[in-house]
Amino acid sequence: MHTVQDPLARGTLIARDEVAAICGESTLSYWQLNDRVHRLAFALSELGLSAGDRVGIVAGNCHRYVESYLAVPAAGMVIVPINTRASEPEMEFVLRDAGVKVLITDRAPARYEAGLVSVIRMPEEYEDVVAAARPEPLHIRPSEEDLAGIFYTGGTTGRSKGVMLTHRNLISNAITALVWAKLRKEDRWLVMAPMHHAAGTCLVLSSLWIGASQVMLPAFSAAGALDLIERHQVSGTLAVPTMMIAMNDEQTARPRNIDSLRLLSHGASPAPVEVLRRAHAAFPKAELLHLYGTTETAPIATTFQNEEQHLNDELAGSVGQPALGVEVAVFDPDNTPVPSSAAGEIVLRGNNVMAGYWGLPEESAKALEGGWYHTGDLGFITEAGYLFLNDRLKDMVVTGGENVYTIEVEDALYQHPKVQEAAVFGVPDERWGESVLAVVVPRETVTEEEIISHLRPLIAGYKIPRHIIIQNEPLPKSAAGKILKRQLREPYWQGRKTRIGN
Amino acid sequence: MHTVQDPLARGTLIARDEVAAICGESTLSYWQLNDRVHRLAFALSELGLSAGDRVGIVAGNCHRYVESYLAVPAAGMVIVPINTRASEPEMEFVLRDAGVKVLITDRAPARYEAGLVSVIRMPEEYEDVVAAARPEPLHIRPSEEDLAGIFYTGGTTGRSKGVMLTHRNLISNAITALVWAKLRKEDRWLVMAPMHHAAGTCLVLSSLWIGASQVMLPAFSAAGALDLIERHQVSGTLAVPTMMIAMNDEQTARPRNIDSLRLLSHGASPAPVEVLRRAHAAFPKAELLHLYGTTETAPIATTFQNEEQHLNDELAGSVGQPALGVEVAVFDPDNTPVPSSAAGEIVLRGNNVMAGYWGLPEESAKALEGGWYHTGDLGFITEAGYLFLNDRLKDMVVTGGENVYTIEVEDALYQHPKVQEAAVFGVPDERWGESVLAVVVPRETVTEEEIISHLRPLIAGYKIPRHIIIQNEPLPKSAAGKILKRQLREPYWQGRKTRIGN
Repeated sequence: MHTVQDPLARGTLIARDEVAAICGESTLSYWQLNDRVHRLAFALSELGLSAGDRVGIVAGNCHRYVESYLAVPAAGMVIVPINTRASEPEMEFVLRDAGVKVLITDRAPARYEAGLVSVIRMPEEYEDVVAAARPEPLHIRPSEEDLAGIFYTGGTTGRSKGVMLTHRNLISNAITALVWAKLRKEDRWLVMAPMHHAAGTCLVLSSLWIGASQVMLPAFSAAGALDLIERHQVSGTLAVPTMMIAMNDEQTARPRNIDSLRLLSHGASPAPVEVLRRAHAAFPKAELLHLYGTTETAPIATTFQNEEQHLNDELAGSVGQPALGVEVAVFDPDNTPVPSSAAGEIVLRGNNVMAGYWGLPEESAKALEGGWYHTGDLGFITEAGYLFLNDRLKDMVVTGGENVYTIEVEDALYQHPKVQEAAVFGVPDERWGESVLAVVVPRETVTEEEIISHLRPLIAGYKIPRHIIIQNEPLPKSAAGKILKRQLREPYWQGRKTRIGN
Repeated sequence: MHTVQDPLARGTLIARDEVAAICGESTLSYWQLNDRVHRLAFALSELGLSAGDRVGIVAGNCHRYVESYLAVPAAGMVIVPINTRASEPEMEFVLRDAGVKVLITDRAPARYEAGLVSVIRMPEEYEDVVAAARPEPLHIRPSEEDLAGIFYTGGTTGRSKGVMLTHRNLISNAITALVWAKLRKEDRWLVMAPMHHAAGTCLVLSSLWIGASQVMLPAFSAAGALDLIERHQVSGTLAVPTMMIAMNDEQTARPRNIDSLRLLSHGASPAPVEVLRRAHAAFPKAELLHLYGTTETAPIATTFQNEEQHLNDELAGSVGQPALGVEVAVFDPDNTPVPSSAAGEIVLRGNNVMAGYWGLPEESAKALEGGWYHTGDLGFITEAGYLFLNDRLKDMVVTGGENVYTIEVEDALYQHPKVQEAAVFGVPDERWGESVLAVVVPRETVTEEEIISHLRPLIAGYKIPRHIIIQNEPLPKSAAGKILKRQLREPYWQGRKTRIGN
């Protein structure tokens, strides 16, 4: 019975003159934010759009992104956040696939805009539209089951798919997040991950619902993030592992006063335990909180609270326990639950699970078979209810009949003090089918032999990479900071089919 | 899409071997609690009861109360908690009115049990039933809209009515409470208010959902409560004001180590600010959190977080802001919203609002007119969204055409250091219609004149009681600790009708 409109409505009631959003030199009170959201929603309805129409957005993190993210569903329409780092053909694909009519953008005019009903360019045009519109409350009341947004998956594997999330999905995540983040009105939440990604918008509705403030980081840099934490006394944030690595280094090299930071949550891809240990050393007062989820689960599925207390016990490396309202199970290939601690595919169920993939009924049916969302991730659940990830189904290396979970190898690599970044994947091998290969970006000069002898006591022989490529340029990453293994792997598989066929 | 079954299911998954409930010398793990709940639910279904049948309970706080509160709705039936201090005719009225078939009780056999299908007496019979039953999971899945319980209102005014609460209502409150209590797995929650009252069960589902522990206080005493807080390192509790008064005195006289107590929430009736100041002095490390609500709202409607920071500013005495998911408005007698800061009747809307009164369609329609629950409380909301209560509609005194809010007068009385308890109400007056009367229980000898001269600088002349009765015996209270003004007032109104006709 709640919709995306409700959090801002309550926030405005309980924190009318308090800070809702800080973006660069702009500070908006709840009253101001609410007024701008209503104006934008009214302006969109005046463009001749009707309920269910899609409105795209391509922009860096800013308060106008928050406004669009709220106004579009509030007006009964569907928001389509688009990856800022997409190529022109990729942009065009998403715009056509989703049938976007209006685009809100901070980019320069481009060919892919042809055919749209309207383009609202930020900041000038956007501000003109907001200034000219009436701030009237809209008399639209979407239902819980209505689509609120279509979120295109990052596409680290395969073609980008539009994940359809309803009001109920987003509200369900907002409730879950209020619980794990223990948000309160006095909190300032730093929005660090890009807002076109679920990690960027994960806390937007929760923060508004409780009347807290959000601080926007337009484009990530470790120095920029730490400066904002110090300047605005930020209480919590959500990082992806590559951000955490950079922030650990920056805080160690040039410490800021970050005592206000009580919560450092992280997710989007698995964080090596060594990275978490460094984070705990660099941010000793912050609770570390591991989040696991997918765009399809809006996004949070499991949480590991106070992870910093378990970095050296048997729970180290877990992604935690089912989030409130989310059921987690592990299935074998026949969709039968496996016993405790046995490995299989992780499946999820709850109010947070997507309605399906836009325009892809067959893939939707397959992903949601039996009422469970099939993540494609491999893992197991202990009797105590802790989930461990083994690997992406597609990332697992099968070498000489043995399964190698690349995360485990990466974790061992990160324990070497000279390793800055590492990625492990399978390459074709005449004899073994696949063999394990690692690409390492070092902090300082290091040899392949040094790394191999570091690994030997840590992991079984068949898991040790047969080749380690040491390179100085950073690993390729998605806009959300995920390492793009597909891109690293591709050259080795040219003209061949991988085991699983991607 | 959640029902009363879900919190225990998640609690058992994430905290299987951890403590779910402590009651006297008994400690139950989640696994044990879950097992006992499933056995009890199975046993109830074996008694020939079917979905929707009512099961009553009369008992002091204990882990068996928690089990019944969970097992009955889990089996698709309806729990009917009955006031332990009800007289035999009152018990009989509730049993007949609700059509109770099975009674779970810790009382001696009584005439009102005649005609029931079965009586399960605690502890022996109850334990036999649980031991004999199978612990199988029930294959019943109630819907959100199904009745979970009928909760008879305390009846401080008028006849007791059965408030029908659905699974959705109770789940909605559980979510709200998770947010305001910021509960976490490590917490220990002390259940102090009687569990037949909404204040007693307010946190039961929330605690289970997050995997926290609950400590039961079978019957309230300030010393007993403080001993449990010290012994079990209790992190939070919910008190009614009379409990808080007693705990303030006890902690001041015989201090315990209560450093673990981070949250002292209170509700059920208005707490004079002076009582809150004393609570802050006695429990300096605890957040004070004012809760306002009614049984009809399952129960929480507003929350005032960190109230201890506002005991001397313009927010002192507020009951806070709308709880998450609850809409609050103030209506005039024509059901039209009044402007900010104007007084009127407080009305509430949300997933937490009852389905109606059992068997009373006309009273239900009246109470829920226009989709809002009409509380019968008078108050106003400031522009900043803070709700202040003036009085119960029925408690307000009209003297010479002036409205006197009895809470305001009581608040002034409590500021006198010698005043232990105070109650203010209207009595018939030939000249003024009604006049203001106060009954005061002193800590030490005090005269009427002393009190009147204390009041003079604090409140307007027409609000000052024309008579103050000083008595040494404690004021009459309901089982939940609410002062029974009706009982104090009655003798004065014998044979007359009060203004509002009760």
